Amino acid sequence: MKKWLLTVAVAASFGAQADEGMWQPHQLPAMADELKAKGLEIDAKSISKLTEFPMNAVISLGGCTASFVSPKGLVVTNHHCAYGAIQYNSTPEKNLLQDGFLAKTFADELPATPGSRVYVTEDVTNVTERIKGGLEGKMGSAFYQGVESQEKALVAECEKEDGYRCQVYSFHGGLEYYLVKQLEIRDVRLVYNPAASVGKYGGDVDNWMWPRHTGDFSFYRAYVSKAGKPADFSSDNVPYEPKSFLKVSAKGVSDGDFVMVAGYPGRTNRYRTANEVQNQFEWAYPEGKLLRERFIEIIKDTAPEGSDERIKYESQIAGLANYAKNFTSMIEFYGKSTMLADRKAREAELAAWIAKDSSREAKYGKTLAELDALIAKSKAHQERDMILSYIGSTTMLPTARSLYRLANEKQLPDMQREPGFQERDMTRLKASMERIDRRYAPSVDKAVLFDMLKRYAALPEEKRLPALDKAFGIDKKFNEAKLSKTLDKMYAKTELGKKDVRLAWMDKSVADFKASKDPFIQFAVAMYDTDMAEEKKEKELDGELMKVRPQYMDAIIAYNLEQGKPVYADANSSLRVTVGHVKGYSPKDGLVAVPFTSLEGIVQKDTGVDPFDAPKKELELIKQKQYGDFYVKAIDSVPVNFLSTLDTTGGNSGSPTLNGRAELVGLLFDGVYESIIGDWAYDDNINRSIQVDSRYMLWVMKYLDHADNLLAEMEIVK
Amino acid sequence: MKKWLLTVAVAASFGAQADEGMWQPHQLPAMADELKAKGLEIDAKSISKLTEFPMNAVISLGGCTASFVSPKGLVVTNHHCAYGAIQYNSTPEKNLLQDGFLAKTFADELPATPGSRVYVTEDVTNVTERIKGGLEGKMGSAFYQGVESQEKALVAECEKEDGYRCQVYSFHGGLEYYLVKQLEIRDVRLVYNPAASVGKYGGDVDNWMWPRHTGDFSFYRAYVSKAGKPADFSSDNVPYEPKSFLKVSAKGVSDGDFVMVAGYPGRTNRYRTANEVQNQFEWAYPEGKLLRERFIEIIKDTAPEGSDERIKYESQIAGLANYAKNFTSMIEFYGKSTMLADRKAREAELAAWIAKDSSREAKYGKTLAELDALIAKSKAHQERDMILSYIGSTTMLPTARSLYRLANEKQLPDMQREPGFQERDMTRLKASMERIDRRYAPSVDKAVLFDMLKRYAALPEEKRLPALDKAFGIDKKFNEAKLSKTLDKMYAKTELGKKDVRLAWMDKSVADFKASKDPFIQFAVAMYDTDMAEEKKEKELDGELMKVRPQYMDAIIAYNLEQGKPVYADANSSLRVTVGHVKGYSPKDGLVAVPFTSLEGIVQKDTGVDPFDAPKKELELIKQKQYGDFYVKAIDSVPVNFLSTLDTTGGNSGSPTLNGRAELVGLLFDGVYESIIGDWAYDDNINRSIQVDSRYMLWVMKYLDHADNLLAEMEIVK
Repeated sequence: MKKWLLTVAVAASFGAQADEGMWQPHQLPAMADELKAKGLEIDAKSISKLTEFPMNAVISLGGCTASFVSPKGLVVTNHHCAYGAIQYNSTPEKNLLQDGFLAKTFADELPATPGSRVYVTEDVTNVTERIKGGLEGKMGSAFYQGVESQEKALVAECEKEDGYRCQVYSFHGGLEYYLVKQLEIRDVRLVYNPAASVGKYGGDVDNWMWPRHTGDFSFYRAYVSKAGKPADFSSDNVPYEPKSFLKVSAKGVSDGDFVMVAGYPGRTNRYRTANEVQNQFEWAYPEGKLLRERFIEIIKDTAPEGSDERIKYESQIAGLANYAKNFTSMIEFYGKSTMLADRKAREAELAAWIAKDSSREAKYGKTLAELDALIAKSKAHQERDMILSYIGSTTMLPTARSLYRLANEKQLPDMQREPGFQERDMTRLKASMERIDRRYAPSVDKAVLFDMLKRYAALPEEKRLPALDKAFGIDKKFNEAKLSKTLDKMYAKTELGKKDVRLAWMDKSVADFKASKDPFIQFAVAMYDTDMAEEKKEKELDGELMKVRPQYMDAIIAYNLEQGKPVYADANSSLRVTVGHVKGYSPKDGLVAVPFTSLEGIVQKDTGVDPFDAPKKELELIKQKQYGDFYVKAIDSVPVNFLSTLDTTGGNSGSPTLNGRAELVGLLFDGVYESIIGDWAYDDNINRSIQVDSRYMLWVMKYLDHADNLLAEMEIVK
Repeated sequence: MKKWLLTVAVAASFGAQADEGMWQPHQLPAMADELKAKGLEIDAKSISKLTEFPMNAVISLGGCTASFVSPKGLVVTNHHCAYGAIQYNSTPEKNLLQDGFLAKTFADELPATPGSRVYVTEDVTNVTERIKGGLEGKMGSAFYQGVESQEKALVAECEKEDGYRCQVYSFHGGLEYYLVKQLEIRDVRLVYNPAASVGKYGGDVDNWMWPRHTGDFSFYRAYVSKAGKPADFSSDNVPYEPKSFLKVSAKGVSDGDFVMVAGYPGRTNRYRTANEVQNQFEWAYPEGKLLRERFIEIIKDTAPEGSDERIKYESQIAGLANYAKNFTSMIEFYGKSTMLADRKAREAELAAWIAKDSSREAKYGKTLAELDALIAKSKAHQERDMILSYIGSTTMLPTARSLYRLANEKQLPDMQREPGFQERDMTRLKASMERIDRRYAPSVDKAVLFDMLKRYAALPEEKRLPALDKAFGIDKKFNEAKLSKTLDKMYAKTELGKKDVRLAWMDKSVADFKASKDPFIQFAVAMYDTDMAEEKKEKELDGELMKVRPQYMDAIIAYNLEQGKPVYADANSSLRVTVGHVKGYSPKDGLVAVPFTSLEGIVQKDTGVDPFDAPKKELELIKQKQYGDFYVKAIDSVPVNFLSTLDTTGGNSGSPTLNGRAELVGLLFDGVYESIIGDWAYDDNINRSIQVDSRYMLWVMKYLDHADNLLAEMEIVK
């Protein structure tokens, strides 16, 4: 019997324990012995080479991970990662989301959502020296701007080669910088997706939950020009031929087996200070949960179920609810944990180590105090900042600001512009301006803005921004009804709700904006100086943090080095490798989550009503015990999903889960509820990732959807 | 890994499988080999003797089971079985429920609620011949009355001996009758109860749930006169000295160990026909759930939280909610099961066996058809009957009817009166009339009655009762507002809300009732002839069922006998023995409930808010890992509750769970949610009983509550 310890999610040490760690590929060779002992069969060195098998088969979709599984550019990822493309190709008459889709020939494959990309990482270069060299004397915003300039220069240089997208990633809060060069494939097509009742089985109800029975997989194909170069969609394009691809295992894994994942985890906070932890869990998460729940409430009240407005906001509701649930888990498990005490103990331990040696004392003696002082400074206006960030989630106000910012940035040479407003960003910016049509209703936008402005107005005057106060008539005699009328007028008058108007503003001058009568444009103009001043203050602080946090991380790394422990950096959306094992856990005393679910669980959950409405044919196959080639004696069925100790987070979705021979045994698509707090501290006892089992994927492909062409195309190994 | 099969709760055979079976003690010797193989160490014969160890240590509290655990009449049962007594002795100043209670000396022990009893079963006699002899020619209500007369005669004869309570129990729907003679100890005192935050930990939230962490135990003591005879409370009374008592195990049980329970299970329906199953699950449970939920809603609306009225109805709300939850589980698991198909298959199997032999054909050939015809008849007015039964859960209407019935019955010699209205019933009837004060508020009673009468009025005329229609002015032009006014007047005018008025009516004549102006008394008088006629019809049908159902059971028993399988009777609140094993289960695919919970689970669940507000001192002991003498290595803690396959139901609460040597290793107090449907069909895979582990009980007694005097008094064995 397993026991769930009292001290949940409280890995107290700095160094990685057991299966903790999101490693940069170049760190792996040094860990070869440990990896071999855990069960890695291929050479650890080979995983560190990005252009060789298996790493060059692992790709990014931007926000999700995927992998090549055939020599003809066939890509497998999560159903939820391909969701947009499936939805985009669906019509009421031909609902691919509902019915599933299978291209029987290459010619039948459908273009994914415009803007869909496949990124193949080809090179990762340590550019720390290039970035920070010569900036030693700079402080605050000067340092910040210096780093930014160097980054832009490196990116521009890197992107000179056609068909590449480059980005500089900061590691350890700015201790190291790496330039990542990715081939950017622009012709991505939908090849196959199971019905949503398989691919999204359990829906939001099961989100973050175990037991799980989701067939969260779908297939794309990457296309390039006949010359083998990235190209826009064209019927002349040909399938991309990756240097290597993953074999798919029909044998799968068993309880206790070694597994590893390569992917693009988004963000973790494993090295935040005790003060940051306390503020985040005791203020930011509770407050954020409250605002999100209020946000959802307002949308639902303003846009009743079944209304056209509601359809436009379903996806935002889902996103808000997803993180409201995330925050709820964070708060719950923080309350049960000793995380704060552990962080404090960890800091005390580090301080003691530093104090023991005068050269260390000289180098790091003041670091934590300096870091904490900067953190305190960054919290000064956090109530206001949080409200403003939620105002940033509305549509009209941020759109106007963004357009005016663009007009201003365009006055500068491309290299001097703010990132996000350079020529390389225009495709995305334009796409985001177009997308508004499908996601905006004035009634909802107004209601949310009204609520957030009321909250803002309730702040003490010294915490408010005079320009914002003025724009909405917020003063001591603040009158809600008046604000409501102001907003009514603004929404009635603005033309920004029209796509062509927004797109036209992308090409207008600062003078055009200043002359405009559009109330939201006028607002953006009125706020501009304040916005810039606030941004400058923020960069000033960020610049200081970018100098101090690396010192803190340097101390942590040195401390661990002395104990022979490698340190991985917090996740930052760059390519990482994590290793672990197939393993259940105890979600609570008296209960054990076993590592595999089985086909029978689908029938158990099925109510016939979305999200528990598996295809009738699937239910029939299960009832008849048609396990076919994928029967597993240990569970007397076909495994559907499985648990592993793999250390992952958002962004890892779609990652191939590999066995010791780097064969694909599953697709990572979620973590369990108890491990949400794992973003702050990994705990071997409860951190679990959830994978679709390759055997379920193959079973669905073979017996339910008859994707014989793809099964023949892939290399399936026993 | 265990698997939860699709076919939940669908034990299809007639005979008992694996750990299924609620056995009458006299059946056990014939099963000696099987019991020994399962793990019974004492002689099976000894369990069949009610006046010897261990069976004479197992006692009934009426509704709950308990056991003697010392030579001085110390009784252990569930906290929830002693709840009333604890509440009765609590005051705002000295809240025993909240703080717990421990009598350090005999003199400190407190009288339990008036009417509390300890029943020691001394004799069980097969009286089938005495009951049915000479009734062969009688049919319908004549047969019913004949059985009832014989029962009353046997009871009267048996109760001639002072201090005894006797009752005739029907087995297999009337195939056999047993007279049970119980010593009725009337001086019952509260000795020790842990705080409700231990004894009721988890409260209604955890009701029927696993994992569980409830210290559901309390201690009584039975007192008798100095002459050793049952007597009313007196300070001269002395502790009862049972012939034997149970030893309490400090060693406890492990996963897989043999366990058995002796107790008084209330009611099961394992032999109901397919038609009965279908009607119950597809009509009665859904309809009952709806009415219960509506009932709760009305109470809550009428008596807002915090009101005096609400306090009076809390216990009724809890009871209604308890069974609404029960019905919900029934409906849910029926939907997932193949129960109906299995019953039909079972009936077909029996029919085939009957048809194979002409003598069987002659004896049972028409039995099932006859039984089903009677069942169909009994359903004719079930919509009305269900509404009327919920009206029977209100207060004023049934009180008036009951009082008038008493006046009528009193005109008859005692032996000819309806059971419930004989002299032997007067104490209980009076107590129920007194109790109304604490459980009645006119506003709530009226609101519920109003709602139920509206439902009744919506029935087609031919399904309604003319007398009832007349009493409330229900006709084609039924007017809700008018009914409401009628009820307002009735509640304003009635005097039955006063205790002394009710008690006075217990002694009045039929003529007094007829002359009364009390609207509820008038109602009772007006309804009387109809009530009697309806009752007669019901007895007519019951009499027929009492002839046919035994035939059906006889066929089932004969069929099983041929296969060498014993048949146990459905539970009927008589003493039964069930044997099983300590065993976890899989509540759903991907999850396993392990058989033991541990102290740490209490801290995990604790929110500091009722019902998860364990005593601070307990939390402290756990955090400090003060496991003391009761540490179990396998779970690295002290076990709190455990699961077993024991076949139990409501009424088994408080039953001692015994190991193979008949030592007390736990107290049964609940079943898991998935096994609620087990009342209809036991399933080895999911039927699980929940016990307080004796080690947790002893740990609380020793380290938390320092009940050293009781620990010294009991015989604790390793």
